[in-house]
Amino acid sequence: MQKYFECLATDRLSNARRGRLTTAHGAIDTPAFMPVGTQGSVKGVSPRELHELNAQIILGNTYHLFVRPGLHVIKHFGGLHNFMSWHGPVLTDSGGYQIFSLAKLRKITEEGAEFQNHIDGARAFISPEIAMEIQTLLGSDIAMALDECVPYPCDYDYAAQSAEMTRRWAKRCRDWKRRNGQTGTPGLADSSTRRLGDSMLFGIVQGGTFEDLRKESAQAIVNLNFDGYAIGGVSVGEPEEEMMRAVEWAEPFLPEDKPRYAMGLGTPPQLLKLIARGMDMFDCVLPTRLARNGTAFTAAGTINLKNAEFILDKNPIEENCTCDACREFSRGYIRHLIKVEEILGLRLITLHNLHFYLNLMNQARAEIEKGTFDQFCKAFVADYKTRDVLGVE
Amino acid sequence: MQKYFECLATDRLSNARRGRLTTAHGAIDTPAFMPVGTQGSVKGVSPRELHELNAQIILGNTYHLFVRPGLHVIKHFGGLHNFMSWHGPVLTDSGGYQIFSLAKLRKITEEGAEFQNHIDGARAFISPEIAMEIQTLLGSDIAMALDECVPYPCDYDYAAQSAEMTRRWAKRCRDWKRRNGQTGTPGLADSSTRRLGDSMLFGIVQGGTFEDLRKESAQAIVNLNFDGYAIGGVSVGEPEEEMMRAVEWAEPFLPEDKPRYAMGLGTPPQLLKLIARGMDMFDCVLPTRLARNGTAFTAAGTINLKNAEFILDKNPIEENCTCDACREFSRGYIRHLIKVEEILGLRLITLHNLHFYLNLMNQARAEIEKGTFDQFCKAFVADYKTRDVLGVE
Repeated sequence: MQKYFECLATDRLSNARRGRLTTAHGAIDTPAFMPVGTQGSVKGVSPRELHELNAQIILGNTYHLFVRPGLHVIKHFGGLHNFMSWHGPVLTDSGGYQIFSLAKLRKITEEGAEFQNHIDGARAFISPEIAMEIQTLLGSDIAMALDECVPYPCDYDYAAQSAEMTRRWAKRCRDWKRRNGQTGTPGLADSSTRRLGDSMLFGIVQGGTFEDLRKESAQAIVNLNFDGYAIGGVSVGEPEEEMMRAVEWAEPFLPEDKPRYAMGLGTPPQLLKLIARGMDMFDCVLPTRLARNGTAFTAAGTINLKNAEFILDKNPIEENCTCDACREFSRGYIRHLIKVEEILGLRLITLHNLHFYLNLMNQARAEIEKGTFDQFCKAFVADYKTRDVLGVE
Repeated sequence: MQKYFECLATDRLSNARRGRLTTAHGAIDTPAFMPVGTQGSVKGVSPRELHELNAQIILGNTYHLFVRPGLHVIKHFGGLHNFMSWHGPVLTDSGGYQIFSLAKLRKITEEGAEFQNHIDGARAFISPEIAMEIQTLLGSDIAMALDECVPYPCDYDYAAQSAEMTRRWAKRCRDWKRRNGQTGTPGLADSSTRRLGDSMLFGIVQGGTFEDLRKESAQAIVNLNFDGYAIGGVSVGEPEEEMMRAVEWAEPFLPEDKPRYAMGLGTPPQLLKLIARGMDMFDCVLPTRLARNGTAFTAAGTINLKNAEFILDKNPIEENCTCDACREFSRGYIRHLIKVEEILGLRLITLHNLHFYLNLMNQARAEIEKGTFDQFCKAFVADYKTRDVLGVE
């Protein structure tokens, strides 16, 4: 496989990088935002709209797809790309996070995790090897190693033992891929031409809020030699400074020639602050989830379109925004749609919010190329008023 | 105003007509299907998608818009076209049907109807003149006279008295328009160039299931000289034969040089049967409403995509269908979306169903032009299996 990640430019005053990651289904310009397609659909938008938004990669949730429609269905359809008619790159999580947060967890051992799903309570078992098999079957372009994401707060001993186990699980994922990487991927629509070796596997750094554990975890995971590295166990309820520190502790250990992914976050200022700390990839449900509640992102912070102040407002959600919602519709109309529960309302806000996140990455890339990202980041953060305490998935 | 309705062709063996109706916002090829935009949005689709579906006109529900967002809001936005960003023709109903079926009716007199709306119970009063004012304010291209739609079954005396009152109300609507037709329409986005006289007013034939009343009503309404004529009080629970008879009794009285609108129906075979009986325009919530329940229309009848038989089905909803849903997505995927309540699912079925209805009108127009509509209609009806008893609005 040829060089799949290139760092094209770096910022002058921060650790921000502008790069390009090449996958079997196309290239991704980094820093990149990945819309979340939880159940085989990015909530509220179609694959065509994702393309029009210039989304270059989406995330699929292994756990949700495992529960419904079930893997036999996705296998029958030749993988997730074919099933959902999204022909760009897909990153899949390992399923671990939802097993620990959503399912009824029965037992976690060195071997893996036994759980009952949250829909019909059916029992299932996942191990690092099974997580790899599932993601392979889904046809993932970027698979994630199975990890344990510890909650916040978490005591030191548990965080230490857990990070150790995550390392051993990561090694088992890597070894499974080494054993199986040269075989084709039976059942996938493009199985004749595509090999497992064409997909990537990212390792995940854990370690809670503890400096030594974060550093040890980063070092140990990097020693296993993955295609990219993720920071996990962030945005689980900790204060933002803790999140930033967890990334700062790990980052110096991450090789410059591989992509870095900060998992499951965050607000627009958080994304920029993490780009300044050398992160390349992000996924977050906020743009889609908050849209369903009537909340839209703007450079000045979020606004809730349900509010009475917007009843007669003829302005678009955000002045000069080029998204389909802002080019055609007023705040007043979208407010009406949300109030009377017309689904066009949440769809328009979703389009705007995804555009906002994707465009923010676009701006970030341009500023890095110009060497002015640091100033841009500081100005954006200063102008953005975080009005709501935002829960994240 | 120049000639606004032309009959371009007639079928050889039926009363089907192929025509063109020209409004201030564009031309409508008839027979025409009008998607229903109840609350300022055709449920599940955007104005852009309606254009791509070649919808040439939509219907707006005066009652719903009166209740939410309220007329002051729509007036502020310069009318319904501007408010919802739909720039094609709009037909509005008078609001009467929903006042009688949805609101809590307080009192109906010769003067008008007093009611409490179904959302917050606020009292309001509507008269023929007020119905005209409201539709004018909405910026309607085709307004409907206020009528009373009697239920099914209904005794002869009530139906007779009601049809008489509907005639008097129709006259008051006509007279209101004559008095106000030469003035501009203040508040509308295009008020400087547009006059009330540019909009049309249709009268409505009532008379329940009684032959003499239907004939008398048709004659009386036609004598008032409207821009078009509607058959109301059909599809209110009566057997299909009663519906057909109500239309057959009225139709000979309707002038050939004006459009005819069969209100609030129906299934695809019913539409074709009514086209064969000389009807030109239709509106129906079935394509959008049934979609939300997982039901899709095909030439062989409806299918419910929730059914387990579709889990592994790689076919589109309908073979050879050219709609966006069928060109890209499988029944199996759409079934999954509906089962996990992803809104993309109901949106895709809505797109398909609207395409089905609009395309059926397209086919009907082509067959009338060839003089072969009668055979087409009979063959379609024979192939279409009505599997469900379909409730209609």
